[in-house]
Amino acid sequence: MRAVLLVDLVRQEEKLLINALNNSGIQYDVLNVGQESLPFTRSLGRYDVAVVRPVSMSRALYSAAVFNAAGVHCVNSPTGIVLAGDKILTYSLLYREGIPIPDSEIALSPDSTFKAYEKRGYPLIDKPPIGSWGRLVSLVRDVIEGKTIIEHREMMNNSLLKVHIVQEYVNFKSRDIRCIVMGDEVIGCYARNIPKDDWRANIALGGVPSKIEPDQELEKLALKSVKTVGGEFMSVDILEHEKRGYLVNEINDVPEFKGFMLALNINVAERFVEYLKYKYG
Amino acid sequence: MRAVLLVDLVRQEEKLLINALNNSGIQYDVLNVGQESLPFTRSLGRYDVAVVRPVSMSRALYSAAVFNAAGVHCVNSPTGIVLAGDKILTYSLLYREGIPIPDSEIALSPDSTFKAYEKRGYPLIDKPPIGSWGRLVSLVRDVIEGKTIIEHREMMNNSLLKVHIVQEYVNFKSRDIRCIVMGDEVIGCYARNIPKDDWRANIALGGVPSKIEPDQELEKLALKSVKTVGGEFMSVDILEHEKRGYLVNEINDVPEFKGFMLALNINVAERFVEYLKYKYG
Amino acid sequence: MRAVLLVDLVRQEEKLLINALNNSGIQYDVLNVGQESLPFTRSLGRYDVAVVRPVSMSRALYSAAVFNAAGVHCVNSPTGIVLAGDKILTYSLLYREGIPIPDSEIALSPDSTFKAYEKRGYPLIDKPPIGSWGRLVSLVRDVIEGKTIIEHREMMNNSLLKVHIVQEYVNFKSRDIRCIVMGDEVIGCYARNIPKDDWRANIALGGVPSKIEPDQELEKLALKSVKTVGGEFMSVDILEHEKRGYLVNEINDVPEFKGFMLALNINVAERFVEYLKYKYG
Amino acid sequence: MRAVLLVDLVRQEEKLLINALNNSGIQYDVLNVGQESLPFTRSLGRYDVAVVRPVSMSRALYSAAVFNAAGVHCVNSPTGIVLAGDKILTYSLLYREGIPIPDSEIALSPDSTFKAYEKRGYPLIDKPPIGSWGRLVSLVRDVIEGKTIIEHREMMNNSLLKVHIVQEYVNFKSRDIRCIVMGDEVIGCYARNIPKDDWRANIALGGVPSKIEPDQELEKLALKSVKTVGGEFMSVDILEHEKRGYLVNEINDVPEFKGFMLALNINVAERFVEYLKYKYG
Repeated sequence: MRAVLLVDLVRQEEKLLINALNNSGIQYDVLNVGQESLPFTRSLGRYDVAVVRPVSMSRALYSAAVFNAAGVHCVNSPTGIVLAGDKILTYSLLYREGIPIPDSEIALSPDSTFKAYEKRGYPLIDKPPIGSWGRLVSLVRDVIEGKTIIEHREMMNNSLLKVHIVQEYVNFKSRDIRCIVMGDEVIGCYARNIPKDDWRANIALGGVPSKIEPDQELEKLALKSVKTVGGEFMSVDILEHEKRGYLVNEINDVPEFKGFMLALNINVAERFVEYLKYKYG
Repeated sequence: MRAVLLVDLVRQEEKLLINALNNSGIQYDVLNVGQESLPFTRSLGRYDVAVVRPVSMSRALYSAAVFNAAGVHCVNSPTGIVLAGDKILTYSLLYREGIPIPDSEIALSPDSTFKAYEKRGYPLIDKPPIGSWGRLVSLVRDVIEGKTIIEHREMMNNSLLKVHIVQEYVNFKSRDIRCIVMGDEVIGCYARNIPKDDWRANIALGGVPSKIEPDQELEKLALKSVKTVGGEFMSVDILEHEKRGYLVNEINDVPEFKGFMLALNINVAERFVEYLKYKYG
Repeated sequence: MRAVLLVDLVRQEEKLLINALNNSGIQYDVLNVGQESLPFTRSLGRYDVAVVRPVSMSRALYSAAVFNAAGVHCVNSPTGIVLAGDKILTYSLLYREGIPIPDSEIALSPDSTFKAYEKRGYPLIDKPPIGSWGRLVSLVRDVIEGKTIIEHREMMNNSLLKVHIVQEYVNFKSRDIRCIVMGDEVIGCYARNIPKDDWRANIALGGVPSKIEPDQELEKLALKSVKTVGGEFMSVDILEHEKRGYLVNEINDVPEFKGFMLALNINVAERFVEYLKYKYG
Repeated sequence: MRAVLLVDLVRQEEKLLINALNNSGIQYDVLNVGQESLPFTRSLGRYDVAVVRPVSMSRALYSAAVFNAAGVHCVNSPTGIVLAGDKILTYSLLYREGIPIPDSEIALSPDSTFKAYEKRGYPLIDKPPIGSWGRLVSLVRDVIEGKTIIEHREMMNNSLLKVHIVQEYVNFKSRDIRCIVMGDEVIGCYARNIPKDDWRANIALGGVPSKIEPDQELEKLALKSVKTVGGEFMSVDILEHEKRGYLVNEINDVPEFKGFMLALNINVAERFVEYLKYKYG
């Protein structure tokens, strides 16, 4: 097997992947996708596998697309990235498949967003279809907060940020659960506990990781979710609802795993390189 | 069959579709997707087919996603829309399938864009992965024009507009060809002739439609292209290259057909409603 | 006297001005500043006075600048427009002059904004230096609302919208007072009462106009405020503070007067044309 | 005298100023205006002079405004910064004063911009009213380049970037001249020679500094220009026109002086601190 590791900013995760690749005997190159242009060319077919790790969503997506064009197997595939990278497309596929998601509706104008708020009642969550690290995921507790958020979103220049996912606020247990999926296996799950003065569990916002023991239902759900969007190495964020149980909230197409390693003491990078070797070696 | 026509702005195309639906006996509703929020709910399953016609790309995509979630067959499907709506994802799939495209490379930073210009040589085309009506499709004739374009794109707030497709400038015959595909059939093709003082054939920019008689190769190419992105009712823009022949340049997921009707005198709306009846009726 | 009326969108206010000019015998032209480019040329000096009425702040400012360059007296002058059009520059000049303003501080980064919130305590007002009709003027009631607003503002592409005026929330009497100043005279004042479910008094947001009888202090304050920013025909928004009395909140460089006319039954357009005639005729 | 040096990013220029201040015996503080919020308060009046050096235009302007409010003398004053920081306001004041500028017109819509291009003829320069380091200053050589630039500017989210200064292309001698003014004195002038493959002389874009000996006319022009916008320590960019001689092109409100020092071997920071001491000491 010959692999290529696609990166832009090299975080701790990518350093660990490089270490693991070095120890594996796999022949590989590292390509900084911000430095060179990427031609559509068969010659990229010299690689068997592309590991897609750019931090920027557009760089991840488009570098995967160019390698996919040359017949290189991408982890994750561009189609998987574009579907998991968009929360509405993700919800659409999950819901169709019968996988439980937070009760949600899509509002495509300021007026229909306001109507959706008033119909649903407060508190609620409003978030755009794209974005990472909890950014712009807003807790809306009354009409005043709602007006402020709608007004601010309308001033943004990206049409996707003017789209509103209006959904129930699920805060039972004040945490979410993140599971990492690799191929047909869930390699682990951990909880992220919501910090004081926030409503989001993201580690970047102060979320506190803690170990949990996943049950079979949770593992099955995580696995099925990733399969549904066409993912191979992705993480899944799951909420717990007092009555409805597990709800899949989000899927991450270039999974970060620093928090995961801290909580579970599993070397994700090594596990991933073993997986590559086993599957494509 | 029960159908729903999803719209925002009602153009001539949508008026013709409404007329044709009225004459067809098909039971249908029109839904303005900007006016009401769209919940993920099984109750939308009362429709068999959703015809996706919003002018706004995000409204088309997300309204299709909500109906798809409820198991409604969407023309076009959200996956088809998201793949055809992105020129790089489209090229990736076409190239992988062996369908000829303009010789292109993807640049994900200002520096790599500039290098790609200098390596390729001028003139060339630079365009972002998203956008309609030829917008931001730029002819770059020398280093000065190139610097100006890179600088302007960097000042935009949407990360997708900072992505550059750098490609060969194909202007053999000074026109492009647009074919409309419906299911397994190409219902016609016409040429759009580039107007004076422009380098693009878009009707919105003054492109002049004229009738052509498609050969088998052209029809096969159009059909295969639409299948490849998972489309059902889409149009395909094709360039003619002096040496390489037909090159697929773009696929349109919510096809406009005013120019097509003018050039070919085919009532696309009626044909489409017949297709719906035959296929899902 | 020869006058030019500079407009883009012609609102009711501009129609009334045209009527009044027609009845006045003043020789005048109307110039739509969006339709023709405006050269720096002495030939514009054929006008004595330019009445600056474009709705767009940038169009008002720059059309005034071009006429000012040719020696035409502009109402209002470009310097007056640029100073009154920026809430921080306005506060700076008012405060220096000893005119009371809401207790405020300027934060030029997300971190310093958050610190300013925490130091001041909630509730507070956060608004950017530019903007009309109350847009982006936010009521911040706790740390959660504060985080949401800072995050949203950071995603905007205009550096001025990332600047935060953090100020005390003055809602004594649940209204503000708007006075219109013309030359050395206050032609009237009215109150705008804050509607249900909002925290702003703007008519565009549902504010209810009502008549008031201004006292001498109020009139003096309005007049001095407009002089301080170099204005001639401007309106002033004034808050009432339980302890500190009148506070000047904002000055409007292209004053709207529909609400004013409704509340006070004064024909502002006629009064303004009389003023022009008297002063420059 | 007690001084405060306002900074955000500390460049070589600010380091030199700090050195010079240290050697001068002047009592001073350095304030990073991005780290703390800036209240409107009389207590800032403990400073006599604020030296305004933030790189960001909005941070320079607004930190100056807050210190000005407290009666602190700012170099430069907020009014000077806002006038010099906007190329149209600058041109307006210069033209009114009879100071020669490049032949220019202002276009406030895409259509009027296109008309201005066609009327003036190519090549021409199109630039927005704000911006530094030559950014978005475009050379427009024909209708194709013109269409591309208008289209790109329309996609930007800042209304000021949609405003077009359309002006004659002055490239006699392929350079511009930058003079630095301090109070009533021009402390020197140097030329910036336009590099290969560019049309702008900015050092940041590769412009090559070279020493020149200013004549009296040049010095008088530079001095008068800075006075006209209310500046105290500013630099002036001057073009040479084959027939019309010197034309003032731009004034810089937070003057960089690295290139100046290289070309002329004058320690601007030391000279400025001497000036402060002499004037306010």
